[in-house]
Amino acid sequence: MARELIHHRGPQFKEVFGEVHQRLQWSFETTNQVLSLTCSGTGAFEAAMINFTKRGDTVICIGGGKFGERWGEVGRAYGMNVVDMPLPWGQSADPDELRDLLKKVPDVAMVTVSASETSTGAWHPVAELANVVRAHSAALLAVDGITAVGVQSVPMDELGLDILVSGSQKAFGVPPGLAFVAASERAWERYPESDHPRYYFDLGRERRAQAKHQTAFTPAISVVLALREALALMQDEGRQALFERHARNARAARAGVEALGLTCFAQRPSNAVTAALVPEGVSAKEVVQTMRERYGVTIAGGQGDFADRLVRIGHIGFFDGSDMLVAISALEQALRDQGLDVELGKGVARVQRELIGV
Amino acid sequence: MARELIHHRGPQFKEVFGEVHQRLQWSFETTNQVLSLTCSGTGAFEAAMINFTKRGDTVICIGGGKFGERWGEVGRAYGMNVVDMPLPWGQSADPDELRDLLKKVPDVAMVTVSASETSTGAWHPVAELANVVRAHSAALLAVDGITAVGVQSVPMDELGLDILVSGSQKAFGVPPGLAFVAASERAWERYPESDHPRYYFDLGRERRAQAKHQTAFTPAISVVLALREALALMQDEGRQALFERHARNARAARAGVEALGLTCFAQRPSNAVTAALVPEGVSAKEVVQTMRERYGVTIAGGQGDFADRLVRIGHIGFFDGSDMLVAISALEQALRDQGLDVELGKGVARVQRELIGV
Repeated sequence: MARELIHHRGPQFKEVFGEVHQRLQWSFETTNQVLSLTCSGTGAFEAAMINFTKRGDTVICIGGGKFGERWGEVGRAYGMNVVDMPLPWGQSADPDELRDLLKKVPDVAMVTVSASETSTGAWHPVAELANVVRAHSAALLAVDGITAVGVQSVPMDELGLDILVSGSQKAFGVPPGLAFVAASERAWERYPESDHPRYYFDLGRERRAQAKHQTAFTPAISVVLALREALALMQDEGRQALFERHARNARAARAGVEALGLTCFAQRPSNAVTAALVPEGVSAKEVVQTMRERYGVTIAGGQGDFADRLVRIGHIGFFDGSDMLVAISALEQALRDQGLDVELGKGVARVQRELIGV
Repeated sequence: MARELIHHRGPQFKEVFGEVHQRLQWSFETTNQVLSLTCSGTGAFEAAMINFTKRGDTVICIGGGKFGERWGEVGRAYGMNVVDMPLPWGQSADPDELRDLLKKVPDVAMVTVSASETSTGAWHPVAELANVVRAHSAALLAVDGITAVGVQSVPMDELGLDILVSGSQKAFGVPPGLAFVAASERAWERYPESDHPRYYFDLGRERRAQAKHQTAFTPAISVVLALREALALMQDEGRQALFERHARNARAARAGVEALGLTCFAQRPSNAVTAALVPEGVSAKEVVQTMRERYGVTIAGGQGDFADRLVRIGHIGFFDGSDMLVAISALEQALRDQGLDVELGKGVARVQRELIGV
């Protein structure tokens, strides 16, 4: 990150950017072009939606959390006909419910889902949802993989996903500033008819530029440089090992919070983040603050209506078992500080057992 | 840049971001809020245009280079009625011409100009243009200050500019990834009526979040951290010293290229970049390539129709006189390599004289 910058119109950048592109294709498990945009993940949602649909098109947005619902907000901002598939926070989408909705709603142009819903820690059954969309509709399936790609298998080509989005600061473990959008040939066929106004997020322009290993506009160069290193580490580790490490850390975190008497929030948990409901009468915000200030461990609170009810332990990116030990240890202590009757070492011992598999 | 990241929803980020905001106000010479967006400068152009105008509004876009003309492209992408004020590349806008245009075109909602036109090295007379706009129109004046803020005085409040845009990678000398938009109260009064579709670039949402020293979406945190350091250096140097250093480097670069028989391209040159026409028969691209590969000095070629006719020496950011010496020295050598009859040392000597003022 602190290396001297290279110029984004020079040959050295092209070489780096070309390498990053190949490695991104590896992590997206696709032969589609994976476009890098300088923006947050939300910008990539927006680009994905407005380049492959027309004004007034109908989109089904699968809810169940802050990020799933955000797709609907983007669609409404563009005057689209957004049909929500509402879902209580923490639940995962039911493919049968989506099938029924697709049968009822005519001419759906796009279905959106956040594979790993960071606000609740829930995992949506992307493979099953993709099957339903293909079987019952001509709609494109757009998947937010921001906390999914590089964590659990979301093989874009194998599942036949039309759009897959991710961001630099999650599994890739580099600072925020870049987001990624890959689109299938089927999606690109709809690009010429797409008539939403856009300039910075015009993916057609980016596609042409990035085919030549350039970007249409000045990119976050330092993040590109860091990303190359991170992707190389991920490929060295190997896809299966990467997924298994995330799964192991997730199991350890879930076992740890449950040993402390907390309840895992997600019906079907994601391996990126563990969200747990704190006991009645305890403030999640205070737990998070105590952990940070007294024990030097940063976890997140809840979002939306669950701001003070959930603690969320992230285990996406370059984490290992010792990070889970430290997090659960600090959580134990912080819960005790809140007056809870917590037996010190209980959560930590469960993490240890989970990590060594006994 | 390489420091451990802080979380963008934590108290530490708020503190840093609040400090960055105050220092940005210093560099924009304004009491208006200066919003930071994670995108390139072009994204900030777009945000500036689509938050303070309505669909179908008339905008006058002052051309004269790639960036001036880009405002018009953005307006057209949003279906606006774009009236170009065309200008041969290299020329600066004539305030009288703008006045005549404002008298002729009814109900102009916005006038746009790129104060320092990076593609040609030209400086537009922002103060005079601002006077004309205020005297003859209710239009907002939107100024691209990407290579102007922190280089030459563009006092937003004193000149009564409605919108001023800049980017992290120019005078601030930190990596690309952040762009800035400041808007006057007068501009914000038009925000509620603005009806362009947008989500990521909705400045109303950013304004509310950033008033609390947060961002609406995940920002390029590492760039924010670097920016704090860069802004502190700029404030320590002082505004006048900063402007004088840029002016001195620019004078040195201009004197150097002219001593080598090149022609300064801009009618009224900017202090950010010196664009010079290479002699007939010489390829600017080859000069740039030779300088980089043989002499380790990176300058830029031209853009658009002038891609192979112009060399552009940047002197924006933390450069000093020795950088100009090195650049002109490498240019001398590269021109000789192209077969030109260049007396070694002639350009360098002119740079030396300019730097010590004799």
